[in-house]
Amino acid sequence: MSNVWFAGLLPLLLAAASAQAEDSKPADTPAPSNIRGAEYPRIHADLRVTFRIKAPSAQKVEFGFFGFDGGKRYPAKKGEDGFWTATTDKLAPGFHYYRVFIDGVEVNDPGSETFFGTGKQTSGIEVPEKGVDYYLPKEVPHGEIRERWYHSKTTQQWRRIFVYTPPGYDTHRETRYPVLYLQHGGGEDERAWPNQGRVGFILDNLIAERKAKPMIVVMECGYARRPGDAAAAPGRPGAPRDFSRLFGAFEEVMVKDLIPMIDATYRTLPDRENRAMAGLSMGG
Amino acid sequence: MSNVWFAGLLPLLLAAASAQAEDSKPADTPAPSNIRGAEYPRIHADLRVTFRIKAPSAQKVEFGFFGFDGGKRYPAKKGEDGFWTATTDKLAPGFHYYRVFIDGVEVNDPGSETFFGTGKQTSGIEVPEKGVDYYLPKEVPHGEIRERWYHSKTTQQWRRIFVYTPPGYDTHRETRYPVLYLQHGGGEDERAWPNQGRVGFILDNLIAERKAKPMIVVMECGYARRPGDAAAAPGRPGAPRDFSRLFGAFEEVMVKDLIPMIDATYRTLPDRENRAMAGLSMGG
Repeated sequence: MSNVWFAGLLPLLLAAASAQAEDSKPADTPAPSNIRGAEYPRIHADLRVTFRIKAPSAQKVEFGFFGFDGGKRYPAKKGEDGFWTATTDKLAPGFHYYRVFIDGVEVNDPGSETFFGTGKQTSGIEVPEKGVDYYLPKEVPHGEIRERWYHSKTTQQWRRIFVYTPPGYDTHRETRYPVLYLQHGGGEDERAWPNQGRVGFILDNLIAERKAKPMIVVMECGYARRPGDAAAAPGRPGAPRDFSRLFGAFEEVMVKDLIPMIDATYRTLPDRENRAMAGLSMGG
Repeated sequence: MSNVWFAGLLPLLLAAASAQAEDSKPADTPAPSNIRGAEYPRIHADLRVTFRIKAPSAQKVEFGFFGFDGGKRYPAKKGEDGFWTATTDKLAPGFHYYRVFIDGVEVNDPGSETFFGTGKQTSGIEVPEKGVDYYLPKEVPHGEIRERWYHSKTTQQWRRIFVYTPPGYDTHRETRYPVLYLQHGGGEDERAWPNQGRVGFILDNLIAERKAKPMIVVMECGYARRPGDAAAAPGRPGAPRDFSRLFGAFEEVMVKDLIPMIDATYRTLPDRENRAMAGLSMGG
């Protein structure tokens, strides 16, 4: 942020412009999860994916998914231009984490946005499903996703949450809303539903079609430990492998810190009939 | 998101727990920009930084900054455990983009959060300055950063913005606020100020100290092209290098789409005395 390096970006920007400038392409298209202007990975009409990365001096390049496709690695072939290319089998539609192995080292694909999953920032590919558009931005009223920090007495730390407020929240000033607490899966955090999960568009569309009541959705991080728990954490030599301590304080954070703060801050319907919890994997 | 791979995360979680569980360390500490639990990069008391990455089968590993430190690369040394380590010269405090070169291929450091900069997702390191805490979360009232999508007639696309609303925005229902339009630098986008720029904490602290009036801050992306401009973009063989077309529609987006939408959606003071624009590099 602190540096002026505009000149150094020219090649990047030109490359992006060039990519977007090409005329109509065959049926394969850049993945919607790519960074602006990146032509690869590309998704074919039959849902195979072609990955591509520039690595002129690498000896071996492979691509592979995480927790999907059986851990298979797709070996890439090097072209004379220094780009390595690999095409996968047909993929299941949906969002998949993936990575590149450069001479055996697992790294991210610079052509992809990164998402917090697998315990770190990871490349992800969104493989669209034909005729399915419930998670895309449409011509409907849009809500907001609000980033808020609050102090937890339980963990003695500042914690970040994301809160979806439905369309009209700011103008319907007397309306109160039910609240859904929506949890991410293992290795993800509070960013998973707003980013890779596209919770805003999904709710906007469901509410517009009257398939869901306007509601508030709260997204927290499932990892929460009491300050004193650190010393007895798993992995420490000689310590018991008490895995649950990584998120052992989460219930207390929810009940004592998060829910009271949400009910005091947003126009919720603060009773048990209007409060729900859902999630996937460790959030389920 | 769609997969249950909880079991596969155990090693990651255990590593994170182990890292956090260690007793008091010497003066060097993990960078605040690291992912949860990552011990490296570490910042020394004299503001040198030690980078470390596991790459047992790599032949050569280097670390280097982007647009800072003269483009110098720090060669890393391989240990018997397969980890490569390099320590930099003394760094200037602040936020710096950096990358790892694995056998010459530029990639991100898995120990770091990534930030959209340099035209893609990039590792970043926050080097704290002694006695400087204006960008840290403090015991003051906190505002929100709201993610909003709107449709631009100029670009014919959905665009994402981030809007900082000051503490009390929801409760002081009649108050109107001045608006600052705050732009990122080249190669960054609308995420730069909310994430690496920590605009929320900075404004919260300034407002609490009465060094700034409560205000709304709007963060948009400077890259904006008219639909028809694509074919004449720079980088295309034979086309003129009309670099400005990458952001040539931004002024029109601001004046015709963004400012009217902001004034209609938020409680702004919609006159020129209460509207300002600032930014760095291409936002300045």
